[in-house]
Amino acid sequence: MQSIIPIPELIFMLDMMAAVAFAVSGALVASRKGLDVVGFMWLAFITGVGGGTLRDLILGVPVFWIVDTAHIYACFATAVVMFFIAPMVESRKRLVLWYDAIGLAFVTVVGTVKGLEAGTGPLIAVVMGVMTATVGGIIRDVVSGEPSVIMKREIYVTAAVAGGAAFVVVSSFQFPNTIAAISGFVTTFLVRGCTIIYNWSLPSHGKR
Amino acid sequence: MQSIIPIPELIFMLDMMAAVAFAVSGALVASRKGLDVVGFMWLAFITGVGGGTLRDLILGVPVFWIVDTAHIYACFATAVVMFFIAPMVESRKRLVLWYDAIGLAFVTVVGTVKGLEAGTGPLIAVVMGVMTATVGGIIRDVVSGEPSVIMKREIYVTAAVAGGAAFVVVSSFQFPNTIAAISGFVTTFLVRGCTIIYNWSLPSHGKR
Amino acid sequence: MQSIIPIPELIFMLDMMAAVAFAVSGALVASRKGLDVVGFMWLAFITGVGGGTLRDLILGVPVFWIVDTAHIYACFATAVVMFFIAPMVESRKRLVLWYDAIGLAFVTVVGTVKGLEAGTGPLIAVVMGVMTATVGGIIRDVVSGEPSVIMKREIYVTAAVAGGAAFVVVSSFQFPNTIAAISGFVTTFLVRGCTIIYNWSLPSHGKR
Repeated sequence: MQSIIPIPELIFMLDMMAAVAFAVSGALVASRKGLDVVGFMWLAFITGVGGGTLRDLILGVPVFWIVDTAHIYACFATAVVMFFIAPMVESRKRLVLWYDAIGLAFVTVVGTVKGLEAGTGPLIAVVMGVMTATVGGIIRDVVSGEPSVIMKREIYVTAAVAGGAAFVVVSSFQFPNTIAAISGFVTTFLVRGCTIIYNWSLPSHGKR
Repeated sequence: MQSIIPIPELIFMLDMMAAVAFAVSGALVASRKGLDVVGFMWLAFITGVGGGTLRDLILGVPVFWIVDTAHIYACFATAVVMFFIAPMVESRKRLVLWYDAIGLAFVTVVGTVKGLEAGTGPLIAVVMGVMTATVGGIIRDVVSGEPSVIMKREIYVTAAVAGGAAFVVVSSFQFPNTIAAISGFVTTFLVRGCTIIYNWSLPSHGKR
Repeated sequence: MQSIIPIPELIFMLDMMAAVAFAVSGALVASRKGLDVVGFMWLAFITGVGGGTLRDLILGVPVFWIVDTAHIYACFATAVVMFFIAPMVESRKRLVLWYDAIGLAFVTVVGTVKGLEAGTGPLIAVVMGVMTATVGGIIRDVVSGEPSVIMKREIYVTAAVAGGAAFVVVSSFQFPNTIAAISGFVTTFLVRGCTIIYNWSLPSHGKR
């Protein structure tokens, strides 16, 4: 994986985007539950930084929002704004899905990049991307007592797998990191987005 | 934050108090679920040390109950005592709330102290206090299948925010740590206690 | 604990066995929920490595599946095989229980060994064994929205306590690690197995 040039700025920006997108999805759940502004901030924060926190713990690197507090402010600001505009927004359940999809795409890419950065091979990099991509949403769903999006038949984890794989493949062809990151983002978002719109699913034996 | 003099003894004691208070709340849930004595010990233990464990992992310092086993014994002893006296106690649901409030107050203070100790700024210190304060209770509620106290409209997270802020403000005025710790504890406990008694809540848009 | 000779191979093998057994139990839940093959892999993976991951984080050692990717492949291969054979299997609920029991026995032993290896005393070693033994199953149950096996009156945590204690006692008599490991495994599996068959439980006050 020599083709990967360390780009701390890329990671910082992606972590930020992922945190904000997941923070929005967390805030929208807080809104449906009728929480107060502190509840919004809290749920936005743990949804926004949960995945990246686990990623950093497992990789054994300093947790990103301890290193740079910008992510905390970003989650809190997102939550406060959402507290005031959320009531105007119709059909929040669907909006949660879309912001979750954006968060999923960002966090898949940044998880993969940071895995490669930490010197792991492509397999672990993709696994890190996928695992940490799903954790923010799982925490949000479990804490708020909703059935986890991951236990549904629709394509969710698969989107992250596709995006992580796209990143690894593109970057292994010596393309610059930005191209690889965009490929990973677009792949994840497209697969997940089509699932939301067209109800895509992979074959399974279940009838549920 | 030069005014913060490292007081490992203060941290040890607060960690101990927090563990015992949360252990009681965990044991009371175990009692309502009709678990055996090992179930009591187990639920008391993960509730008692869960928050502090996450705090230490995120701060990158050795986990406190690995360093000093006194906390494990304290949780276990609490659980065994509770196993025998819990059936005599009426209205356990309310008692869980009060012990949870005590645990919340202790763990908010110790999370904030340890955050400052680890060299973080006041914002992260308060966030650490709040986040780790809520984790013990979340684990207890999620594992036992109860709706999380945090998803209710009543003031919970806000109490920890107030207590952590009180600690940081008082200690920034060069008061000794003990004064700051007491201020943080009293603030958290008062806000949470009034919420339990008077059903305080912040304004929200929800109707739930 | 000088009698404990470091046996990285023993730990590797046990971690592998535990991961596969828990992966099977995770895949069986995925099957009952009617997930696709990626859902199988994902649930098998987090169930299979969840407990060991927390153990390594708390002990402050590198996470085992980052160090050696064999565990990831093992979980994925298990999941894919299960995806094709699960529909043929009757009474999956009972099978989940038995594979969970095998995983429980392996992970109790390996948690205890790794605790001792990391230089902790016998108490923490047993606690590590028990705590990490229960985490894989808790994650599986919480994420899939099933009531946690740990909140039932039947003996579960107790089996891990007995197995961990058996390991520590046998190894303290200077027996070789393999003997201690087998003692721990057999004790855990016997106690848990008898519970599944004969519905063993410890006395409790509950009536639930």
